[in-house]
Amino acid sequence: MNPSDSIFEFRSIGQIHTCFKEKFGIPRQAGLAKHALGFIKLHNGLYFSQCLQKLETFTHIWVIFVFHQQNRNDYPISKIRPPRLGGVDKVGVFASRSPHRYNPIGISVLKLDRIEINAKEGAELHVSGVDILDKTPILDIKPYLPYCDHIPVAKSGWIEAAFSKMPVEFEQSAESCIQRNFDRHPHLKSLIQEILSLDPRPASQKSKTKPYYGTLLIDYNIIWNVKNGKIWVTQIQELSNHETKQL
Amino acid sequence: MNPSDSIFEFRSIGQIHTCFKEKFGIPRQAGLAKHALGFIKLHNGLYFSQCLQKLETFTHIWVIFVFHQQNRNDYPISKIRPPRLGGVDKVGVFASRSPHRYNPIGISVLKLDRIEINAKEGAELHVSGVDILDKTPILDIKPYLPYCDHIPVAKSGWIEAAFSKMPVEFEQSAESCIQRNFDRHPHLKSLIQEILSLDPRPASQKSKTKPYYGTLLIDYNIIWNVKNGKIWVTQIQELSNHETKQL
Repeated sequence: MNPSDSIFEFRSIGQIHTCFKEKFGIPRQAGLAKHALGFIKLHNGLYFSQCLQKLETFTHIWVIFVFHQQNRNDYPISKIRPPRLGGVDKVGVFASRSPHRYNPIGISVLKLDRIEINAKEGAELHVSGVDILDKTPILDIKPYLPYCDHIPVAKSGWIEAAFSKMPVEFEQSAESCIQRNFDRHPHLKSLIQEILSLDPRPASQKSKTKPYYGTLLIDYNIIWNVKNGKIWVTQIQELSNHETKQL
Repeated sequence: MNPSDSIFEFRSIGQIHTCFKEKFGIPRQAGLAKHALGFIKLHNGLYFSQCLQKLETFTHIWVIFVFHQQNRNDYPISKIRPPRLGGVDKVGVFASRSPHRYNPIGISVLKLDRIEINAKEGAELHVSGVDILDKTPILDIKPYLPYCDHIPVAKSGWIEAAFSKMPVEFEQSAESCIQRNFDRHPHLKSLIQEILSLDPRPASQKSKTKPYYGTLLIDYNIIWNVKNGKIWVTQIQELSNHETKQL
């Protein structure tokens, strides 16, 4: 094969804005946190009203994106330690959906909640069930087609389909913050519960005691720790860079 | 956004070899023709035995590839005429899985039949239910994960889930060719039936009479026409460039 045939250049068509301001805490697949919201903003210059025509007839879309915060100098990585295997055992990178890939391309199926198009702001596709970092470049959008994308006989391989969730409790000061911001973020409590119940701690830290963790969500810093098999949200700090959009 | 942030370069990790030697006749999604076979050959230099480890525990894989025979000078295309809508009505490119895209990236979920690794030949992933052109560059391979990729509530949008299939009949000389090559290609008849029953004619030609069509499959040229609501395979030409692999 001619090496020049093997290099391909793509341009992002837009960027996704999500509630996840850092990698820590992002659910490891799409659809696990229903209240994790985002919107894809297409770049100006695309013919929004044309290229999105009839997309609103679908309930779910495939979003093809770039894992842009992966350090490409680390490549090639052949094997990764999935958190699901306790961070000890390794699997091949092609047997995993890890962001550490030869080509850092991700695919996520997201719920398409609504499409907003206007001349000034451009086109925004509002989605939920997001597992993508804020400001991730988007390469493509395709409809989810149940008649070919749904494979009833497919097996989950080394990944067990069932996984346990941790109970999440809120201390009083955290509850107060949630109530104070209810108008702005009515689903904040559900979002925190969904994210933390997946136990985002690195597998290597699950056996150690760490006094607390901080997880950035929307414009909050969620402070939590683990005690007696439960996750305790002790405090929620409101950050100053308020999001203007409902995420 | 800084324009340099919006351009991304990827290198193929391998190439897929399939029974489809031309675009005409390729099923319009994966999984529609169970006997459409192929194998992904990873480029030398990848650590096959490592990067594929535990992939064999999955029954299905996502293959991320480049629609390399699309003419990129034609871009941007905002709307396409899907064959499913009779080639008349248009939909936005993001509401379609058409190869005519801003970024010509395709995703197909294929059945993983077996993995062959040896020091001399490298790694081959044998797959079925293929809808990809022969010699297509592959960008990534990921496991299909039923717990997130299967969305029972997803709707098919403008694409009707049910679609009719055409009956396929074989004339005597075609039958003879199939029997003569049974040892080499035992599933040739099933493959032809699956492909032609999907009626690969361009939508614009379905109302016109054309004396015959030719469809290249593996190393055969399938000659067929349409008469009285049936597809008739009149002749099968054996081409000289025999495939050495069972496709």
